[in-house]
Amino acid sequence: MGINQVNRDIPTKYADQYGVYDGEFTNVKPFEAATKHVQPVKPNETKLLASIHDAIVKTGLKDGMTISFHHHFREGDFVMNMVLDEIAKMGIKDLSIAPSSIANVHAPLIDHIKNGVVTNITSSGLRDKVGAAISSGIMANPVVIRSHGGRARAIASGDIHIDVAFLGAPSADAYGNINGTKGKATCGSLGYAMVDAKYADQVVAVTDTLVPYPNTPISIPQTDVDYVVQVDAIGDPDGIAKGATRFTKNPKELLIAEYAAKVITASSYFKNGFSFQTGSGGAALAVSRFMRQAMIDQDVKASFALGGITNAMVELQKEGLVDKLIDVQDFDHPSAVSLADNPDHYEIDANMYASPLSKGAVINQLDVAILSALEVDTDFNVNVITGSDGVLRGASGGHSDTSAACKMSMVVAPIVRGRIPTIVDEVTTVVTPGASVDVIVTELGIAINPNRPDLIKMFKSLKVPQFTIEELRDKAYAITGVPAKIHYGDQVVALIEYRDGHLIDVVKNV
Amino acid sequence: MGINQVNRDIPTKYADQYGVYDGEFTNVKPFEAATKHVQPVKPNETKLLASIHDAIVKTGLKDGMTISFHHHFREGDFVMNMVLDEIAKMGIKDLSIAPSSIANVHAPLIDHIKNGVVTNITSSGLRDKVGAAISSGIMANPVVIRSHGGRARAIASGDIHIDVAFLGAPSADAYGNINGTKGKATCGSLGYAMVDAKYADQVVAVTDTLVPYPNTPISIPQTDVDYVVQVDAIGDPDGIAKGATRFTKNPKELLIAEYAAKVITASSYFKNGFSFQTGSGGAALAVSRFMRQAMIDQDVKASFALGGITNAMVELQKEGLVDKLIDVQDFDHPSAVSLADNPDHYEIDANMYASPLSKGAVINQLDVAILSALEVDTDFNVNVITGSDGVLRGASGGHSDTSAACKMSMVVAPIVRGRIPTIVDEVTTVVTPGASVDVIVTELGIAINPNRPDLIKMFKSLKVPQFTIEELRDKAYAITGVPAKIHYGDQVVALIEYRDGHLIDVVKNV
Repeated sequence: MGINQVNRDIPTKYADQYGVYDGEFTNVKPFEAATKHVQPVKPNETKLLASIHDAIVKTGLKDGMTISFHHHFREGDFVMNMVLDEIAKMGIKDLSIAPSSIANVHAPLIDHIKNGVVTNITSSGLRDKVGAAISSGIMANPVVIRSHGGRARAIASGDIHIDVAFLGAPSADAYGNINGTKGKATCGSLGYAMVDAKYADQVVAVTDTLVPYPNTPISIPQTDVDYVVQVDAIGDPDGIAKGATRFTKNPKELLIAEYAAKVITASSYFKNGFSFQTGSGGAALAVSRFMRQAMIDQDVKASFALGGITNAMVELQKEGLVDKLIDVQDFDHPSAVSLADNPDHYEIDANMYASPLSKGAVINQLDVAILSALEVDTDFNVNVITGSDGVLRGASGGHSDTSAACKMSMVVAPIVRGRIPTIVDEVTTVVTPGASVDVIVTELGIAINPNRPDLIKMFKSLKVPQFTIEELRDKAYAITGVPAKIHYGDQVVALIEYRDGHLIDVVKNV
Repeated sequence: MGINQVNRDIPTKYADQYGVYDGEFTNVKPFEAATKHVQPVKPNETKLLASIHDAIVKTGLKDGMTISFHHHFREGDFVMNMVLDEIAKMGIKDLSIAPSSIANVHAPLIDHIKNGVVTNITSSGLRDKVGAAISSGIMANPVVIRSHGGRARAIASGDIHIDVAFLGAPSADAYGNINGTKGKATCGSLGYAMVDAKYADQVVAVTDTLVPYPNTPISIPQTDVDYVVQVDAIGDPDGIAKGATRFTKNPKELLIAEYAAKVITASSYFKNGFSFQTGSGGAALAVSRFMRQAMIDQDVKASFALGGITNAMVELQKEGLVDKLIDVQDFDHPSAVSLADNPDHYEIDANMYASPLSKGAVINQLDVAILSALEVDTDFNVNVITGSDGVLRGASGGHSDTSAACKMSMVVAPIVRGRIPTIVDEVTTVVTPGASVDVIVTELGIAINPNRPDLIKMFKSLKVPQFTIEELRDKAYAITGVPAKIHYGDQVVALIEYRDGHLIDVVKNV
């Protein structure tokens, strides 16, 4: 039986292989941690190699292996393209790649897929050209979409076994001590890369800033690195901060943010020591601003802000309104600078951030998460991976992780985007199950998940318009009309893993 | 055949089980990293338990399991005795214990051995009463003595599999984030404990200072901790710093230190960016003082000092003569304070410090190590574990690790101690093979290992009296006479592992 708990039909072949989604915590069970093959390094042996070519040779990389990358450079990443180009030149084929995510800048990947260099992909997300190409069906094997916590789980449990991780290192010494806060292309936290380094058989640090031994602070230690390669440039600092958002002036976003802040500050979670995570979108960033005023007015201080750190959080921390920043990834340059300078701004790995199988992730301690969405349906299921046309263009990110684990998960979204409804009967693709989503915040008002009667009671006298999710959908459809059905092909182009590794949905070709 | 490369006869039973020492790097070979059984923690689950008793119950600790402790509290440790007393009360028997070392304060262990609670021990060292009791033959199974790097290797490779680690935590939050720099009993670095936490199936943090979440800095993360127990006191701060040495006024030690400093500063290693490790003994500490003057005079700065950090190193770092302190353990209170305050004072785990099977330990980057010895023999073999009476009373520590890995290993020791010769025909017990030991420094002069002709040449015109090791032995024997043979029994009471896990010696009962 392939119908899962969010009513999605998972083809038997994949249902058998992965299992299907059957509840948020059903599959949180004891497991044996993954092992790795370690090649010890003796005194007098050097790790420094002359080129990426030499590193590929040294690691013994061959057809069929799995390699990984991190996406901390976001749209500024040079490393994945450089390494795949070299691999292609060397005639190595049939690789599985396991980057923590894939950006627009990685469009050259399309050729490597077509040429058979890359035959399997797992990633948090797929953007524009790569997403469209994969949605068109260029791969024989579906891409496996994993959340940030799900990826950490998969690596820690051995579902992903990385043969060689190629890790862009903003600074490294010749023995492999790495951080993301020094160098030419600083990205701040290396939270995703830290997991790769810990579990990969072999790790190649690719750096453009080689510093004297010992490089500190140490985000990734020499004991997790086999080789170090110096190149001219690993990333474009402008691209790293690309998409980082300034405070919005969009009145719709401001209204959403104001409503969201009202929900938070009226909740029982809003008290000294509370904690929150926001996304990097316009509305999410603006929530911080409205919350800030309430924190000052009511003398409430947060114990920590988690993320996905943005300058908005850094400013709150500097003001003393937030004790600590817990950082798996930085969305802008000021956040990376803060990580370097501020002992209360603390770097963690993705396993500690969000893995459902860890001995307790930070999200388990989180009070409130403010998340975005491409679509929300009347079961409160959320889609953050496909457009309304069914094409892959988003990222799973930490959405399902934080939603499941935090005490109150909020989705902020405009009711429509142009002619496309955000609140719909059925999301195109389920990434986060409705069971995890507590409050939808739109510019027209909020809808509270009926599975949270405590919140419905809590917000009874809240001065924000309240609707059922069906009413919000009706308001959306009143503007856009009922969306037309998407005509999919028969090929499965992506498997959407729930954070526990079971399939919550699949995406077919369009 | 049980005779190993340092000419020690290893009983067949143990030779077969462990292998025998056959060269410093012969057994540095690829391996599969140890795995662990992980019990994930869900949101809303608490890790905080009311007592050590409850933690023992929760972990399911039972007869035959292996538990571990760390020795960062040194003579001030309360944790091991507390936990073993409770375990004994609960009737659990036949445990293997794997503390990183054992101090005088752990004398109650003797009763737990006699009562069958503890039937196997591995440790870096054994002091006074416990050492004497074990040397007298109270255990059926020999204690396995491992170096700090060897212990990390054994844990990382699965030779030691820790079922439950009970880790004294100077500060912890209720979700298990631990550091050693805050709290009532600060010990500074938790370098040994970090390895246990990483590889043990279950980890119990025992703290007397429970702080709000999230506790930072994070030496051991929540993802490596299963339970947290708050107790009244985990250690005695005075005991932690006990034995920490002030600068010596002993003229013999000062002369040894002066000679050692002359050797270092005359060597080719003494240049900008050099690195060193010293012990905590009087002569070793004094070396820093003499070296300091040469560093100032010759405008030479060290890139890092490694250890076993002492206030002497902290002072050099503050003065700008040493760039960074790399810290697996703190020997005194000022060092612990420095670790808390100084971003260039950096905490590492024992795997990164010294494991021969890691992807490159820090000792592999070390220029000069200054080490102590109970005995050195004419093959340059060093004993740091048994007295001249054959009784266990020392610790393997990082001796064989740093000696093997650094570029120039120096042993500083007086030629005799009272009526006991330090330089002898044959050490009572071999811990570090002569192949690893480069220069012996005594108050009468130095002896250079003939296997280092480069050093003999380098120090040709050095203004320090130079002898063969046989001449130094003769000078010692001239004072003390030839030492009498020790009369051992037939029982093997300790196995001395070389850092690679093979046996370099055994100790029999006396």
